[in-house]
Amino acid sequence: MDELTSFANAREMNGATTKMAEDIEILHPNLVLRTKETPDPEALGLEEEFPGWHGYVEWERYPERKKEVKEYMKKFNFPGAPEFQLVPLPKANPILEGVRWKQYHYALGNATKDIPAESWFFVEKEKAPDMIHNRLVATPITRNEDHFVRNHGGIPEIDEDAYFFDVEGLVNCPKRLTMKELKNESIFPRQSNVVTIQCSGTRRIEQIHEYPGDGDELINAPDPSASNHVEFLGADTYFKKGEVFNYAVSAPWRKAKANEVILAWEMNGKPLPRIHGFPLRVVVFGYIGARSCKWLTRINIINTESTGPVQKKEYLYYNSQVGKHNASYSSGFSIQDMPVSSAIMSPLDKDQIIHDGKIKMRGWAYSGGGHWPVRIEASGDGGSIWYEVLYQNMTDKYYHAWRLWEIDLPVDAEGWLELVVRCWDNALNTQPTYVRSAWNWDLHVTSSCHRIKVYSINKTRPKIAAKLKHFEKLGVPFLPITQPGEMDLEGEESYTQGMVARGGRDLLE
Amino acid sequence: MDELTSFANAREMNGATTKMAEDIEILHPNLVLRTKETPDPEALGLEEEFPGWHGYVEWERYPERKKEVKEYMKKFNFPGAPEFQLVPLPKANPILEGVRWKQYHYALGNATKDIPAESWFFVEKEKAPDMIHNRLVATPITRNEDHFVRNHGGIPEIDEDAYFFDVEGLVNCPKRLTMKELKNESIFPRQSNVVTIQCSGTRRIEQIHEYPGDGDELINAPDPSASNHVEFLGADTYFKKGEVFNYAVSAPWRKAKANEVILAWEMNGKPLPRIHGFPLRVVVFGYIGARSCKWLTRINIINTESTGPVQKKEYLYYNSQVGKHNASYSSGFSIQDMPVSSAIMSPLDKDQIIHDGKIKMRGWAYSGGGHWPVRIEASGDGGSIWYEVLYQNMTDKYYHAWRLWEIDLPVDAEGWLELVVRCWDNALNTQPTYVRSAWNWDLHVTSSCHRIKVYSINKTRPKIAAKLKHFEKLGVPFLPITQPGEMDLEGEESYTQGMVARGGRDLLE
Repeated sequence: MDELTSFANAREMNGATTKMAEDIEILHPNLVLRTKETPDPEALGLEEEFPGWHGYVEWERYPERKKEVKEYMKKFNFPGAPEFQLVPLPKANPILEGVRWKQYHYALGNATKDIPAESWFFVEKEKAPDMIHNRLVATPITRNEDHFVRNHGGIPEIDEDAYFFDVEGLVNCPKRLTMKELKNESIFPRQSNVVTIQCSGTRRIEQIHEYPGDGDELINAPDPSASNHVEFLGADTYFKKGEVFNYAVSAPWRKAKANEVILAWEMNGKPLPRIHGFPLRVVVFGYIGARSCKWLTRINIINTESTGPVQKKEYLYYNSQVGKHNASYSSGFSIQDMPVSSAIMSPLDKDQIIHDGKIKMRGWAYSGGGHWPVRIEASGDGGSIWYEVLYQNMTDKYYHAWRLWEIDLPVDAEGWLELVVRCWDNALNTQPTYVRSAWNWDLHVTSSCHRIKVYSINKTRPKIAAKLKHFEKLGVPFLPITQPGEMDLEGEESYTQGMVARGGRDLLE
Repeated sequence: MDELTSFANAREMNGATTKMAEDIEILHPNLVLRTKETPDPEALGLEEEFPGWHGYVEWERYPERKKEVKEYMKKFNFPGAPEFQLVPLPKANPILEGVRWKQYHYALGNATKDIPAESWFFVEKEKAPDMIHNRLVATPITRNEDHFVRNHGGIPEIDEDAYFFDVEGLVNCPKRLTMKELKNESIFPRQSNVVTIQCSGTRRIEQIHEYPGDGDELINAPDPSASNHVEFLGADTYFKKGEVFNYAVSAPWRKAKANEVILAWEMNGKPLPRIHGFPLRVVVFGYIGARSCKWLTRINIINTESTGPVQKKEYLYYNSQVGKHNASYSSGFSIQDMPVSSAIMSPLDKDQIIHDGKIKMRGWAYSGGGHWPVRIEASGDGGSIWYEVLYQNMTDKYYHAWRLWEIDLPVDAEGWLELVVRCWDNALNTQPTYVRSAWNWDLHVTSSCHRIKVYSINKTRPKIAAKLKHFEKLGVPFLPITQPGEMDLEGEESYTQGMVARGGRDLLE
């Protein structure tokens, strides 16, 4: 609700500008003009494209409008990207609030001004208010309200009755289709699939902890001849390096022909939530989530991949020594199919676990491109000895979805241990060993073996059980382990006996 | 100065207590009584032991007084140890302020009440106000004001004219010696030595980052027969698990006989600073700093090692799987001689370095127990290829002191690299590979190879030099690398050429 409140305040501030210096005015917290000239959003004349399509400004069909906005945006001193990787990471969730992103919308005026606040409103409405780590793997099929939300722009509000999309490009017969037409089963075949959508930024935090990377502000039926790619355009506005775009990505035509690309209006048997693309989104099986365009406005059949920045300049996978000093778009390859990966969802990193010789581990495993997890292995010693998860303890196989797993890992050792998981898919692909093994500048695809540190307290050992009882008797909680007990670790007698048995601390003369 | 201010405030609050609940009173921020009964420090009647020995309360000669204080301390609800390891580490220096430590002194009343504030006063007076990381290795001999300060109690203020110390225990002829007598060269031989004093907690932060450990609050001439150990007692008061002690540690008699234990009243040719033990301290060569007792009051010749908590219950080295659940004093061995170790002092972790094919590294290397660093090696690839530091680039050898070193490490690779240093001493001892290899619950002796991450920008490559010039021309600083440039990474032409040369992003149909 903080976002909404701050936007309500921001709206009130509209018009009432404050003088800061000779040639600078504050329009909004941190949003200052570059010159004395007050940019007038009214003069831009931005309007929503269609009635019933709130928050949708069309950019791609109006190149002149895009140019005009690019010049207009230069009049503002938007704040730089916040430094968050070279300093201790903030504990906020999300880590970054998206200040610049909000200011871009605000700067463009009425047609876009309220989109950040409205987007937040839909997130609050459609997403579970808490994000319980563990619930994500409680059922093989993720509940709609638990499914991750990751957009490049704001969330438009489109009436289903007013909705349609266009099919054009290298097609014999361009078409505009309404939802009613699309849902006519005698024209369009339907299919229902179990599909995992995975963001290429999944587990990104592990790469950031390893090394800081690209510090960009990260919020958040044709019949052609030379048609090699299918481009999808969305109703959301995407700001990139001072320019505006509609969201645009593509998948190879071959993928669509294989029935691995669908237009979806339902999710788990319910209408698609707005945060997930209502009324219609694309789902590209086995690819990164970024290709599954939401709020679809257009299907464009083209000869090469989309030249939109999301397809051409982002989601690129670089060699690990590439960075700010030498990165170029052509030297990174495009992330489409996702590789085999897995994660431990329980226990959590730094958990301190009192157990009876076994630690229960639970998590997920996934492989893109039509592969499935065949074998999942867990290690209690940092990746030397591997225990195989029983096939009975893995959820169903699908061509395009994750499998959940659990294992009671035999653990004799005490103290700090490193628990690791890795997965092998049906093509025998497995995961890189360490984060460093596959670290990349854009911090995508953290597919290395997932590692967590847990503190093991094996209460099958009589001495340990006695120690725990001792704490219990004194009414002092044993956890967290970093909280010292006020009692001595060892009595006088035990110490003396121990020292005598060891022949004293030092040699005698 | 915050400490002094807060203590001035605390002093004013003395007497004026505030009701909090039926059976609890606040005496001081966070210092609350356990019962209705108001403990009266006056009734304890604690006094300083001698005139001219401000801040020195003798405990070890008065067992009844120690018992009385132990009971008295139980009346207070001192705050628990602060949790700082399982949460992001605070950026404060020191990390912990020592709240409980101050409250212990406050609770005991007049003789001890002001010691924390006075200690801070001497630290501010005698320590350089800034701690420039790099200055520590600017000269082989550390300046007095840069030398680390690490005490277990407060700093007493002892007049040299009023000062003496006792020699007793298993000696034929117990003696009380004044400074004047000690400085009489016809009686006591003098020696001057170059000696490194190293805290066993050096580089501890690396272990904390690896795993949280013991969360205790860490502020920071006899002629005997059966005499095997020399015990040293200091004038400082040490609080431990609700009891009071004078600082007491010991070294084997054999060590003293070898002239590796001295009583020091000068440091680098100047009078010993108060923060380092004025008027007289012990220096035990090659041992952890904790054995080099400051503000010496007594030398006690004994048959076994000191039973003071610092010697018996602390500075113990445990197997890496030992922790809160199974630690006992007798199972840890005593840290006396320090092992071979080294550290990179320049560059710093996460530095981003523009260089011409070589990165200059500087640091220190040390080995305790009379050994010296013979070979120092640096790696630019995480510890696979090692370059030897030229002997010309190492400072002088001593039996008991560190050597500084520097190397121009050949670096071709770009992006994030892991720089590592390791040392071999004259007994061919070298350092464990990773922090985990030698991690221990009490977080002592971080002797593993020191590793830092740096981002390498090799400007001997024409493309890189051109990129840097481009930033310069635009007036945009290139560093930090996490700050994205607003310009495109690559022009349209270069991208198209790159894609054509690669045969396009995807396969064609």
